[in-house]
Amino acid sequence: MAASVDLNADLGESFGAWKLGDDEAMLSLVTSANVACGFHAGDPALLLRTCREAAARGVRVGAQVSYRDLAGFGRRFIDVTPEDLTAEVIYQIGALQAIAHAAGTTVTYVKPHGALYNTIVSHPEQAAAVAAAVAAVDAGLPVLGLSGSAFFEEAGALGLRTVAEAFADRAYQPNGTLVSRREPGAVLHDVSEIAERVAGMVMTGQVTAVDGSVIPVTVESVCVHGDSPGAVEIAAAVRERLLAEGVALSAFI
Amino acid sequence: MAASVDLNADLGESFGAWKLGDDEAMLSLVTSANVACGFHAGDPALLLRTCREAAARGVRVGAQVSYRDLAGFGRRFIDVTPEDLTAEVIYQIGALQAIAHAAGTTVTYVKPHGALYNTIVSHPEQAAAVAAAVAAVDAGLPVLGLSGSAFFEEAGALGLRTVAEAFADRAYQPNGTLVSRREPGAVLHDVSEIAERVAGMVMTGQVTAVDGSVIPVTVESVCVHGDSPGAVEIAAAVRERLLAEGVALSAFI
Amino acid sequence: MAASVDLNADLGESFGAWKLGDDEAMLSLVTSANVACGFHAGDPALLLRTCREAAARGVRVGAQVSYRDLAGFGRRFIDVTPEDLTAEVIYQIGALQAIAHAAGTTVTYVKPHGALYNTIVSHPEQAAAVAAAVAAVDAGLPVLGLSGSAFFEEAGALGLRTVAEAFADRAYQPNGTLVSRREPGAVLHDVSEIAERVAGMVMTGQVTAVDGSVIPVTVESVCVHGDSPGAVEIAAAVRERLLAEGVALSAFI
Amino acid sequence: MAASVDLNADLGESFGAWKLGDDEAMLSLVTSANVACGFHAGDPALLLRTCREAAARGVRVGAQVSYRDLAGFGRRFIDVTPEDLTAEVIYQIGALQAIAHAAGTTVTYVKPHGALYNTIVSHPEQAAAVAAAVAAVDAGLPVLGLSGSAFFEEAGALGLRTVAEAFADRAYQPNGTLVSRREPGAVLHDVSEIAERVAGMVMTGQVTAVDGSVIPVTVESVCVHGDSPGAVEIAAAVRERLLAEGVALSAFI
Repeated sequence: MAASVDLNADLGESFGAWKLGDDEAMLSLVTSANVACGFHAGDPALLLRTCREAAARGVRVGAQVSYRDLAGFGRRFIDVTPEDLTAEVIYQIGALQAIAHAAGTTVTYVKPHGALYNTIVSHPEQAAAVAAAVAAVDAGLPVLGLSGSAFFEEAGALGLRTVAEAFADRAYQPNGTLVSRREPGAVLHDVSEIAERVAGMVMTGQVTAVDGSVIPVTVESVCVHGDSPGAVEIAAAVRERLLAEGVALSAFI
Repeated sequence: MAASVDLNADLGESFGAWKLGDDEAMLSLVTSANVACGFHAGDPALLLRTCREAAARGVRVGAQVSYRDLAGFGRRFIDVTPEDLTAEVIYQIGALQAIAHAAGTTVTYVKPHGALYNTIVSHPEQAAAVAAAVAAVDAGLPVLGLSGSAFFEEAGALGLRTVAEAFADRAYQPNGTLVSRREPGAVLHDVSEIAERVAGMVMTGQVTAVDGSVIPVTVESVCVHGDSPGAVEIAAAVRERLLAEGVALSAFI
Repeated sequence: MAASVDLNADLGESFGAWKLGDDEAMLSLVTSANVACGFHAGDPALLLRTCREAAARGVRVGAQVSYRDLAGFGRRFIDVTPEDLTAEVIYQIGALQAIAHAAGTTVTYVKPHGALYNTIVSHPEQAAAVAAAVAAVDAGLPVLGLSGSAFFEEAGALGLRTVAEAFADRAYQPNGTLVSRREPGAVLHDVSEIAERVAGMVMTGQVTAVDGSVIPVTVESVCVHGDSPGAVEIAAAVRERLLAEGVALSAFI
Repeated sequence: MAASVDLNADLGESFGAWKLGDDEAMLSLVTSANVACGFHAGDPALLLRTCREAAARGVRVGAQVSYRDLAGFGRRFIDVTPEDLTAEVIYQIGALQAIAHAAGTTVTYVKPHGALYNTIVSHPEQAAAVAAAVAAVDAGLPVLGLSGSAFFEEAGALGLRTVAEAFADRAYQPNGTLVSRREPGAVLHDVSEIAERVAGMVMTGQVTAVDGSVIPVTVESVCVHGDSPGAVEIAAAVRERLLAEGVALSAFI
């Protein structure tokens, strides 16, 4: 189906003395790097190094915006007001824009992280707040997220380009949303199964949901994780499988 | 001597539930607002409101960059590495640039805050790190600071425009540096004395140091404080006195 | 009805350069000080000064525990796990215990703050997590909160003494819970009306709800606010009115 | 010389999603665990788990107090006032005391971390501030540190017991202080050399300094690092070598 697809991963998620993930290895595999912006991870010096590495390897940089929550790694819902959330997202995008500029590259998209990502699938106020932030910074910045989400609805209403991603290692519900991580079977671990599944999603536009039904899935980008055990191996397998199928890997336009 | 001079003050220094200073009053008096960038003060929503207010009143916005130290309000020296400091300053400028853009204005200069300001008067490595950060973001951004400082030397070496400021309410040493706040008489409190003194500095290019000697002082901008008791009154008196002397108040170019 | 009642207020809620409330004035009016523990407000040096002042005036100290949220002043719900919440509350109580000890006094009760207070009225997991924390530190520490709350149920199940408080300036629903601050009329502002109302609650064990119905209210302590405009005036009026009615003001046992 | 010696290491230095060191392995090797207190590392839930593990293995717990600096992992000097520093250290000790109590154990000593450790070797005001904090919490708490330091002088003046430690993998200057990490050869890496050296220090009370001179060294405890590559291997080798020499490993009294 698709002649080419984007491969994205979360990067720049270390902080000070603490390391997370193998950014160097991932940067040789992906086409888009969702670089943290300091609110859930990423001290400025690390972000600068990450953006430089991305620039050196021709990997495109996106702003991975988050709740302000270092202690929780942005994985906990915070009932922040839309006014605060909009300003916090603007702040984060701008911070990474300057870091990227200093590294010789540019922020070319925005992807919410963790609990914020999940919340704005269905929380209209926070979804609108994030979309408004992106539009306020640059209405030409695409947003990466889940097709059918409140976020995409709000972003579309503001004229933002929405880029639908699929998850390489996550199980889908019949309605196209992800199975919660709290459910058994939510995360796939078998490398070849994941590679096979991604190839299927990209080439057929379909995926088998947990109940066995085959559902449509829009895939402009495939999200691989950078911080779990085996992450690099999975990303490499997905990449090789797609190339073997004749699918080009290139950043979405 | 000067047909016109700039009047600058620190603004946007509240944080969350905590208020500091009377930003609204100060914005009706100054020509340049040194807006905090979130590292020593200033939550994003407040910064956005402050930039909007500044834009509405035609007050120019600068990035007031700082050490990462909310608990110490940026008033404590931190022995941060030059690499970290450069990245932190880039991050802060970028964050405020996006906030300013969303507010319909632009960051047009950079002024270090508190302990960072004082440190880079004489600390070459940190001075160079801050200058490098400004140059990395935009070599066209002027820096506001102390004439004769290591910071100005490093900034000049990178081709940055340096804008010398005088302090309305601080005593000077014979060598042109400020008397430490720990010394008696370091801070002036008498409103009319301060206004008189500023008018003298601006019109003659000279000021009387603590030892009674008359020393030269370069004044492209006058710094008035926004957070001390009587701050608004002092700023208003300085402003009125300068206008009465026929000195125009306008942002430096 | 009551021969004596406790009067409590939130104190120690400044942070670094930022001041909030008039702690000195409030300490001359209340019998129990809910001292912040650093997670939503209160830097250690301030907490130490606050505890010293409380000790000097014979005001009892309680630990005002909170979500970890300086930027939001603890006023935003955070979906923290029970495991994290329990540990965070233990940490905060311990920190204030040492501060209080160094100040010559003791932490004698625990009161949750802001969004945590509101959440555990009806959120059983977080309520249990907070109760477990108090019990883990010292099962002899009473907890101050809302009668009928999930928190009191969980605390009671662990054998903790629960102390019911009434709010001086808040409107009640017919079921005994507070009218949300988002509703009109949720907060009372008239000083004499508030004093009258508190006296009524304390002496009759009843209060008039927003719908005009008279409902029972358990009052072992009365909460007055320390940070709003007019806070000191209201606290003083409540105190004087109670004394005038012959109600002694003394810390709950 | 010594019939027994203590073996200490820094533990509990992960934070949220970020892991540092192999605490479990180290807890099976050391006799004293310097547990972080949340200011440079250590979220409360992790600290609770670490203290429980320590209690389960009979390893004694100490409070590893630090500057407030998560981003810098406590490795950067901060020019904090003595008043603030004293209160911050009290706060940290108390927080860990409650955590330890909840875990069924007790904080039995205090050891400063990183830049604070290094600073108070020679900075009398900060040294006195830390010593005052320990004394304010519990004058019976020993402090672990460097023999001959300003910290030990101040601690001794307040009647605190001082416990001198030696560093397993660090080079010494002729005057008994450590060679700066910025110098070549400051850190030893050869496992058997380190084990040999520690055995020598413990059994003879002497060590060979970088210039080849033999100097006296007081060793009541030996510090092994927990976070560097090979840390566990080094700690195991030191432990085995000491046991092989007939030196018992037991917490200092």
